[in-house]
Amino acid sequence: MDQRFGLDKRIILPGDFPLAGGGVLPELTVAYETYGRLNANASNAILICHALTLDQYVASTHPRTGKPGWWTRLVGPGKPVDPEHWFVICANVLGGCMGSSGPTSIDPRDGQPYAMRFPVITIGDMVAAQTRLLDHLGIAQLHAVIGGSMGGMQALTWAVNHPARVQKVVAIATAARHSAQNIAFHEVGRQAIMADPKWQGGLYAPDAPPADGLAVARMAAHITYLSEAGLTEKFGRRLQNRDAVSFGFDADFQVESYLRHQGLSFVERFDANSYLYITRAMDYFDLAEPFGGNLARAFAGSPCRFALVSFTSDWLYPTAESRRIVRALNAAGAPVSFVELESPFGHDAFLLDAPEMNRVVHGFLAA
Amino acid sequence: MDQRFGLDKRIILPGDFPLAGGGVLPELTVAYETYGRLNANASNAILICHALTLDQYVASTHPRTGKPGWWTRLVGPGKPVDPEHWFVICANVLGGCMGSSGPTSIDPRDGQPYAMRFPVITIGDMVAAQTRLLDHLGIAQLHAVIGGSMGGMQALTWAVNHPARVQKVVAIATAARHSAQNIAFHEVGRQAIMADPKWQGGLYAPDAPPADGLAVARMAAHITYLSEAGLTEKFGRRLQNRDAVSFGFDADFQVESYLRHQGLSFVERFDANSYLYITRAMDYFDLAEPFGGNLARAFAGSPCRFALVSFTSDWLYPTAESRRIVRALNAAGAPVSFVELESPFGHDAFLLDAPEMNRVVHGFLAA
Repeated sequence: MDQRFGLDKRIILPGDFPLAGGGVLPELTVAYETYGRLNANASNAILICHALTLDQYVASTHPRTGKPGWWTRLVGPGKPVDPEHWFVICANVLGGCMGSSGPTSIDPRDGQPYAMRFPVITIGDMVAAQTRLLDHLGIAQLHAVIGGSMGGMQALTWAVNHPARVQKVVAIATAARHSAQNIAFHEVGRQAIMADPKWQGGLYAPDAPPADGLAVARMAAHITYLSEAGLTEKFGRRLQNRDAVSFGFDADFQVESYLRHQGLSFVERFDANSYLYITRAMDYFDLAEPFGGNLARAFAGSPCRFALVSFTSDWLYPTAESRRIVRALNAAGAPVSFVELESPFGHDAFLLDAPEMNRVVHGFLAA
Repeated sequence: MDQRFGLDKRIILPGDFPLAGGGVLPELTVAYETYGRLNANASNAILICHALTLDQYVASTHPRTGKPGWWTRLVGPGKPVDPEHWFVICANVLGGCMGSSGPTSIDPRDGQPYAMRFPVITIGDMVAAQTRLLDHLGIAQLHAVIGGSMGGMQALTWAVNHPARVQKVVAIATAARHSAQNIAFHEVGRQAIMADPKWQGGLYAPDAPPADGLAVARMAAHITYLSEAGLTEKFGRRLQNRDAVSFGFDADFQVESYLRHQGLSFVERFDANSYLYITRAMDYFDLAEPFGGNLARAFAGSPCRFALVSFTSDWLYPTAESRRIVRALNAAGAPVSFVELESPFGHDAFLLDAPEMNRVVHGFLAA
């Protein structure tokens, strides 16, 4: 089979899919993209895990926005993750809205969308769904799993929950748990969505979503993806289309106009209920929690090799969180390389041009 | 006249009050509290300027919430600003909702509330309204003006716009301009309010305010008042009333419950339109802007003495902003003392127990 760019794929697996929270899905759908070809002994597979609002279109055109893949700087011909050498897989996360089972999916038991009847999921559930995809693709073990932000949380979870199925773990701009501040920002976003009367307890029609609430949620979150210095450099106090302030409530400042645009464009490509479920999964994420709070114990005995990358101006998942993971891996005796990269671009740095990050990933995959 | 604790006062000044944005108020009301007695030569007056969501009840019980004054750690008998020695004044800012002219006020021209017909105001306008109050009280020159956060912006503005009317300026946890990130967070709050259908373009009835939107705005802002480390120390990932997570969307985590409470209690004491106007005034604040961006020129020739205080974990108005002001004051040849205080409590540190801050203020007033 030709698994080159741009072919929408999904698997539908009948039968119960049990979830960490005690819920059960009567069937599981995983939508995914692949790039390159799986070799004869199925040893060249690399799984890319995506962040909160991204999707499986890591290196191919997004079908709704028409925009190029979100990580073409890292994945693609001539890039560190080159489909010429690797069979690259990226799946829409469980709970997502780009084809995998989520609150927009139809519950086969009654033919209606799940909406808020969808069970609350965890990062571990997302990873478990990915293992089903690998089973389907005939891949016993990944050469590597790579992810940034929530993708990094999934990558780390692979090493803890399915250590025999992955050789190398690349976790970028991430953390092993959601902090109180992380939870707080997500809660603001959820409250903004739920406060929108159009949300209707999650039972909105596809063409009448709680767009205002979702836009506010996106705006609040977007600030956390950028650094104060980055915002100052990019926008400062520069005015929008005006020589002087208007003394009104229009978007006088460029940063206001930018944020409003971020909110508006987001609602065209993302589902509000999915946003609720995925943020909740992230808030519940604490890799050490089942191990009495001891992160080293979570990694104990892991045969995986690890590469971690953080960015100096990332205040969402700051370097201290990566260092905590590194210390735990050291204590667990797991081989780990770690680098903190200079960047003014905050958390978003991992999605931008980052030659040093590319070198780290390339070297780690080749080693 | 007895100007001891707890007497509600206001002045109503007929006649045009012109505003920086070109608007005009047909009359000006300033609601204020005073503590202590003005001496015979009116030389012992100290003006306290309040922050975004505070009010004139700096050292007396809030009439709506029944809570003690918001700065009784600094102002009161035996405190650095002791009404035994000083005549302490605190006025509700222009645009506020505790008695001074603002969007909840009645426009005398038609007997209807201003709502969004209220002109957009600036920090300079707030200070100009305070000068009218001093005129009324017979105070030609303040011994000192003291403020934290937006109060600090007013204090600095006194030195620039009315340098002959104030001897000493104490600016705490503040900045001489709103940064792109500051503006961005305010814009999220405003969009949350305006997205609430109950806002109705500002024409809501007093008993049917856009409470959901205002609560979301408050929640987002509240995160910026606390530090990441402070939130971790105070809440971490501790659960609310439960031994395990609920796998639902209730407030599982204590930090969620805390934030929701902050949002709900805020709407009981604050007006949504006021929040729009005051945040807008802060966004427009850039003390150097009328001086070609040269902050030193803003302070040039000022006869005032300055004391600045910042807090290590304040990321809303970080120490770098205070240092920028200090550098400008140095360049302008103005006497300034500056101290950065250690605190884990973020921006809110100035409202909490801060013995070193108290010593700074006490020493500076006595000098």
